[in-house]
Amino acid sequence: MTTQLEAARAGQLTSELLRAAAREGLDPERLREAVAQGKAAIPANPHHANLDPLAIGAGTRIKVNANLGTSADRADPAEELAKLRAAISAGADAVMDLSTGGDIRAIRRLVLENCPVPVGTVPIYEAATEAVARQGGIVHLSPDDLFATIERQAQEGVDFMTVHCGVTLQALERLRREGRVTDIVSRGGAFLTTWMLYHGRENPLYEHYDRLLDIAHSYEVTLSLGDGLRPGCLADATDRAQVSELLTLGELTERAWAAGVQVMIEGPGHVPLDQVQANVLLQKRLCHGAPFYVLGPLVTDIASGYDHIACAIGGAVAGWAGADFLCYVTPAEHLSLPNAEDVREGVIAARIAAHAADIARGLPGARDVDDEMARARKRLDWKRQIELSINPEGAKRRREASQPADSDVCTMCGQFCAIKVVRDYFKGKD
Amino acid sequence: MTTQLEAARAGQLTSELLRAAAREGLDPERLREAVAQGKAAIPANPHHANLDPLAIGAGTRIKVNANLGTSADRADPAEELAKLRAAISAGADAVMDLSTGGDIRAIRRLVLENCPVPVGTVPIYEAATEAVARQGGIVHLSPDDLFATIERQAQEGVDFMTVHCGVTLQALERLRREGRVTDIVSRGGAFLTTWMLYHGRENPLYEHYDRLLDIAHSYEVTLSLGDGLRPGCLADATDRAQVSELLTLGELTERAWAAGVQVMIEGPGHVPLDQVQANVLLQKRLCHGAPFYVLGPLVTDIASGYDHIACAIGGAVAGWAGADFLCYVTPAEHLSLPNAEDVREGVIAARIAAHAADIARGLPGARDVDDEMARARKRLDWKRQIELSINPEGAKRRREASQPADSDVCTMCGQFCAIKVVRDYFKGKD
Repeated sequence: MTTQLEAARAGQLTSELLRAAAREGLDPERLREAVAQGKAAIPANPHHANLDPLAIGAGTRIKVNANLGTSADRADPAEELAKLRAAISAGADAVMDLSTGGDIRAIRRLVLENCPVPVGTVPIYEAATEAVARQGGIVHLSPDDLFATIERQAQEGVDFMTVHCGVTLQALERLRREGRVTDIVSRGGAFLTTWMLYHGRENPLYEHYDRLLDIAHSYEVTLSLGDGLRPGCLADATDRAQVSELLTLGELTERAWAAGVQVMIEGPGHVPLDQVQANVLLQKRLCHGAPFYVLGPLVTDIASGYDHIACAIGGAVAGWAGADFLCYVTPAEHLSLPNAEDVREGVIAARIAAHAADIARGLPGARDVDDEMARARKRLDWKRQIELSINPEGAKRRREASQPADSDVCTMCGQFCAIKVVRDYFKGKD
Repeated sequence: MTTQLEAARAGQLTSELLRAAAREGLDPERLREAVAQGKAAIPANPHHANLDPLAIGAGTRIKVNANLGTSADRADPAEELAKLRAAISAGADAVMDLSTGGDIRAIRRLVLENCPVPVGTVPIYEAATEAVARQGGIVHLSPDDLFATIERQAQEGVDFMTVHCGVTLQALERLRREGRVTDIVSRGGAFLTTWMLYHGRENPLYEHYDRLLDIAHSYEVTLSLGDGLRPGCLADATDRAQVSELLTLGELTERAWAAGVQVMIEGPGHVPLDQVQANVLLQKRLCHGAPFYVLGPLVTDIASGYDHIACAIGGAVAGWAGADFLCYVTPAEHLSLPNAEDVREGVIAARIAAHAADIARGLPGARDVDDEMARARKRLDWKRQIELSINPEGAKRRREASQPADSDVCTMCGQFCAIKVVRDYFKGKD
C-alpha cells in the first residue's frame, strides 16, 4: 500500500490527486509538491467507495467541515441523514461523524455510504461509549480496544481521524500548575485525561503512536492531530497547556511524515480576535506547514445561539492568516445538538468566512464570483444575482417574500435604488 | 447655544457627557478630552426629548447602529415601530430612520418619540422624495429646499445626520476617468450625482458647507460625513473615487471642528478583508482621529441572505483596527427591506462583531462578561449561561427545544460532556 504522501514523494500523480487538482483548476504538479511536503493532504480512504477526492492545504481553496453525529439524548439515523444532506447541499467540503449515541456503527456506515466528501471521525468516542456501556466507565477502556476501534473504522473507509495524541502527562501537569477557567472542553481530551489520571499512565495514543501510524498507513487514513487541551474560553487561549500540546503535535507531525502518513493539525477553539493570527503562525511554524484545521475560533464566549457568527469572524481571520480547513460551528453550539437547519446555517457561515479569507489571501480566481455578482447588480439582473448567492434558494425566497412594484429594484430602496437612479439618468441623456 | 464640542473644549462636563461616561464606567475628564479633540462625539440633540446620551469614539465601547425606515414599496408606521423596538431590545446603540416612503415626517416623529438612543437621518432622502413627488424629479430639488429640510429635521430633534458633502465634481471626474464596476451605490450619492451632472454644478452640501455647519451648530446636530462614493463591490474598494472623497471629508472635518460642530466619518461598504485595516488607518490619518462609522464592511459580494455575517466579519476587523461605530447590515440586504426579525438578527450580528473587537482592542473590562460566561460553563450553571448570552431569549428557546435527560448537560454531548466528565472524575477522587 502506497499512501498519497508516498506517491507524491515518488513523483506519481494519483487519480485522487488529479481529481483534487482538477476540481480547483490547480496544476497537478504543484499540488503534488505540496502533498509531498506535507503542506497539503488528500484524505481519501480507498474503502470510502463514493468519495470525490479533494485536497486540503497549501495552494488550495480553504475547506469547510461540518460536524454531524448523534448523542445519547438524540440518536435518530433519519435525522443524521437529513443533517448530512443539509451539509452537502450547503457546500460542506467534509463532514465528521461524531456520534456518541444509538447504533454508532450503523450510523457511520450510513454516513459513509451517502457521503461524497471526506468523512472524519473521533474513534475514541465510539471506544469510550462502548467502555461505558460494557464495562461501566471510560477508565476501563483498554488500549487494545481503542486501537481495535481505530482499525475497524479505518477498514470501513473513514478518510480522516481525530486522535488526541498530544494530551500527554507533561501537558496535563502544565495545565494543572497554571490553572484554567474551563480546564478541558474537548470530549476526546476529557476521556483521555480521565483515563490517564486514573491509571497514572501516559496517553496510549501518544505512547503507542507507532501503532497508530501503522494503521493509518495500512488503510490510508489521514491523521488529524486533535487539540484535546484547546481553550474553552477566551481567558484560557494560547496558554501553556495549549502551546505545550502543540509542541508535541509538531513532533508527531514529523513522525507521521517519516512513516508516510498524511497529517493535519487541529486548533482552537475560543480565541480573542487579536490572538488568532499568532495561533496560526505558531501552528505553521511548529508543525512545519502541515494543514491547519481550526474549530472556530470563536472570538467571544457569549454568542450562544449565534456562535456560527462568532465562528465566521474567527474563521475568516484564521483563514486569512493561513488556516486551511475551517470546522463550522452551528447556532446550536453550547446549547444543544444541531438539527439539519442548524447544520445548513453553520456551513453557510463557515463558507462565507472561508471565501472572504481566500479573497484576502489572493487565491487566484477567488474573487471572480464576487465580480460577476457585482456586474449582475449593476445590470439589475436579479435572476443572476440569486444564482450567484451563497444560498440561492434562501435568496430567492427572501426576494419573493417582498415584491417590489418595479421588478428592476428591491423593496429596500424601491424607485430610489442608487443603481437605477444613476442608470436612468444616463439613459435619459442618450 | 454651546455645542458638546465647545463645552468640552471649555473644560465643561455637560450632563450628557457625564451620563455617557457613567454608562461605560469612563473617567468623565478623559471623555471630555476626547470630545474636545473631536476623537469622540456625543450625538445629543436637545430637542430629542427622551434621549439617553452616549458617546461614540476614542476610549469608548464600539457602538452599533441599526438602519430603519420605509420605502415606497413598504411604508407601514406600525412595522417601523416594531423594527425600532426590535433594534432597541436587541441592543442597538443608535438607529437611523432612512424612510423614503409613506408619510416620512410622521414616521420620523414616531421614531424620535419612541427612541432612547441617538437617531440619525439622511435628510436628502426626504428632500429628494418630495422633489420627485412635487416637481417630478430629483434634479428639480433646490439647494434652499434641501437646507430647509435639514433645518426642519434638526428642529425636530435628529441627533446626527448623514450629509454626502464629499461627492464633489472632482471626485466624480476621478470616478469617471478610472471607471468602476458598480459606479454609485449610495442613495444619497446617487441623488447628488444626478443633480450635479444635470445642472453641471457643484454639490450644494459642499458648496454651501458653512450653511450646513450653521444649522448643525444651532441645533447641536452631529454631522456624519457620508461616503456617497463608497464601493459597492470588492472590485471597487479603496479606489481613487473613494479615497478622493475621503480626502475631502478630512478637510471638512477640520472645518466642522473649527465651527464647533461634532463630526463622524462614514466608511465603506464592500471591502476585501485584507483591505479593511488600511481603510481604517487611512480614515484615522486623513480625518485626524474623527470617529469612524463603517457600513459593514462586507468582505464578500455573494452573501445575499447572509450579509449580516459578511458584515460581522468586516465589522469585527474594522473595529479591531480602530473603527468606532458599526452600522449593521441585515440578512435582507441586497434583497428587500428588512422586517423586525431581520433587524434583530442584524443588530445581534453587529454586536458580536463590536464586542469581539472591543476585546481585541483591550478595552478595559470588555472581556469580563466572557469570563463570567466561562465560569458559568465550568459550573454547568445553565441559568446564568442563558442570562449572559447575547440574546438570552433565543438561547433559552433553543435549550428548551432540545431537553437533555441530565439537566447538567446539553444534548450536544449528553453524558459525555467534557466538563462533566472531568468534574465527575475529580468528584469521585474526593
